[in-house]
Amino acid sequence: MSEWRKDPIVDRWVVIATERSKRPSNYKEIRDEKSSNECPLCEGHEKETPPEIIAYREQGTGRDTPGWWMRVVPNKFPAVDIEGQPYLQERGVYQFMRGVGAHEVIVESTKHEPGLDTQSVKQVEEVVWGWRDRSLDLRKDQRLKYIQIFKNTGPTAGASLEHTHSQLIATPQIPSEVNAEITGMNEYHNRHGRCALCDIIAQELREGERLVAENRHFVCFAPFASRFPFETWIVPTEHQSDFGQIRAQQVQDLAAMLRSVVRKMTLMIKNIPYNIVLHTSPVNVQDDHGNYHWHLEILPRLTTIAGFELGTGYYINPTPPEIAAQALREIQEFYPLQKESELEVARYV
Amino acid sequence: MSEWRKDPIVDRWVVIATERSKRPSNYKEIRDEKSSNECPLCEGHEKETPPEIIAYREQGTGRDTPGWWMRVVPNKFPAVDIEGQPYLQERGVYQFMRGVGAHEVIVESTKHEPGLDTQSVKQVEEVVWGWRDRSLDLRKDQRLKYIQIFKNTGPTAGASLEHTHSQLIATPQIPSEVNAEITGMNEYHNRHGRCALCDIIAQELREGERLVAENRHFVCFAPFASRFPFETWIVPTEHQSDFGQIRAQQVQDLAAMLRSVVRKMTLMIKNIPYNIVLHTSPVNVQDDHGNYHWHLEILPRLTTIAGFELGTGYYINPTPPEIAAQALREIQEFYPLQKESELEVARYV
Repeated sequence: MSEWRKDPIVDRWVVIATERSKRPSNYKEIRDEKSSNECPLCEGHEKETPPEIIAYREQGTGRDTPGWWMRVVPNKFPAVDIEGQPYLQERGVYQFMRGVGAHEVIVESTKHEPGLDTQSVKQVEEVVWGWRDRSLDLRKDQRLKYIQIFKNTGPTAGASLEHTHSQLIATPQIPSEVNAEITGMNEYHNRHGRCALCDIIAQELREGERLVAENRHFVCFAPFASRFPFETWIVPTEHQSDFGQIRAQQVQDLAAMLRSVVRKMTLMIKNIPYNIVLHTSPVNVQDDHGNYHWHLEILPRLTTIAGFELGTGYYINPTPPEIAAQALREIQEFYPLQKESELEVARYV
Repeated sequence: MSEWRKDPIVDRWVVIATERSKRPSNYKEIRDEKSSNECPLCEGHEKETPPEIIAYREQGTGRDTPGWWMRVVPNKFPAVDIEGQPYLQERGVYQFMRGVGAHEVIVESTKHEPGLDTQSVKQVEEVVWGWRDRSLDLRKDQRLKYIQIFKNTGPTAGASLEHTHSQLIATPQIPSEVNAEITGMNEYHNRHGRCALCDIIAQELREGERLVAENRHFVCFAPFASRFPFETWIVPTEHQSDFGQIRAQQVQDLAAMLRSVVRKMTLMIKNIPYNIVLHTSPVNVQDDHGNYHWHLEILPRLTTIAGFELGTGYYINPTPPEIAAQALREIQEFYPLQKESELEVARYV
């Protein structure tokens, strides 16, 4: 059981775990957690996760057995509950509701590898399809208003399992960070009659100094106001609000670019910790979010979010994005041959 | 030299260091940084910091020599520049300005100790006086609109020096987190005709379950929507917008409470990493911020700010504030005798 609680002053919700509450003594255990041969995400350990939600697997293989290459399971220690209704309750100045939501794990490889950089492009495509399929399925649940897809790589970036995986948490509210982007893009549209991110792409292509990569359907650049050293965004060049509308060719291009950027980052700084955040339009809400432009934010965690950042919401970035982009452009990624053929199996859900 | 850059979509400024830009290879060095006997903040090492701005020291002792007990110096690696004018510039969709601001270090002890918990209450009072004096002095500079006082304790919380110290960064804009609190408190005041934080204090005193401590002038509680396990706020019971207006009795009570809470936290979890953030009203702005209520946020860093938090602005907190408050209430702090007499010297700036 968990509870959503709203900050009484600012637009910020917090999920409070009320059941598996961690007493002081529990913290050491969590932080000492190590991955091992007993990794529950490895092939052959399917029974150690909750029953799979979907898997892309060879025909004839059974649920929760080997034969898959991309697998989505409920988080074993979910921050939110799939049961119940998100009815707003009040007590004095405070507002709260049941901790309704979905918390899932997308297992990105059968093998115990730490990142996307060692996966084949084909395999990264499968991961992107997994994100899309879960996004399309979860929005059928009218209680959910946003589907936050994210990835934590490395302990510094919050990964508690080493085996490469991404997660999604679907929430019954539109998160404040997403709301801020929606408001900003709407205001920009009202002022200029154009999409802010479309204009940003145009300027980045024109100026070139923050550009990292470009392919048929995507642009990758280090944002002008990067919060983190080597922060990059991957943005569809075509205006598209909803990640769920991604097309097959876009999936190919996104996977190729994502793998390439992550690979360059990892070649540059070994075991670089990073988060990936997918920002897309909300679901199951009346408002039209046609001005929104979905994108992927890759956020390396080489600096610490400390008192200044928590107090102000501002960031100190010691690496100008122009230098970050140049470094990323100059690094030559190498592509060791992968046995991609084993993935040439019909994908099914 | 540094540059303030505004995010083109959301209300977020980033300081980009343009001179001491960190190339990939520099990151390892930063993270391996260890404190040693050569600590520049220790007594006797005064020449290793930039010349002191103020110090509380024994009469007859000279600037940048021993004899001080609280010392404020410019940060040796400032994120912002004290020189220049914050003129807004534009290039296409982007806005930026010179990285104007102040970045100072408040040295909280002559000795190489890691936290406030081992300081005497008297010494913590001196630190609070130091914060106040710098706040009153810096606001004479009309370019500065906000003075963010903060403290990072432990590497996880962003401290690069072990020797107990706090910092301040004064900015030419009102930070977005502060703006959000101002807006929230103004809206609450418009709706209810009262201060949100005054009402929160009343409810916390009434309900009691999140209360940690109370003295003449301050209340300490674990906020209802705590972002972090064992997060606590210290709030003046009297409505006061501007920390700079703190009175001598309040300084005494704040110091006693702050030291007590930090001590309890440290007794509970050894070397607990934490940030302290002082939120107060802006300076040098036309708007009246009389509805604002200053406070101190103590933010233990036992959990990681990861993809979900960065993507949504929401937090997952595995420890309910009710349990955190109870644990903090129950822990008995002990007060080893300190040589407080050595501080009974007239304080002067």
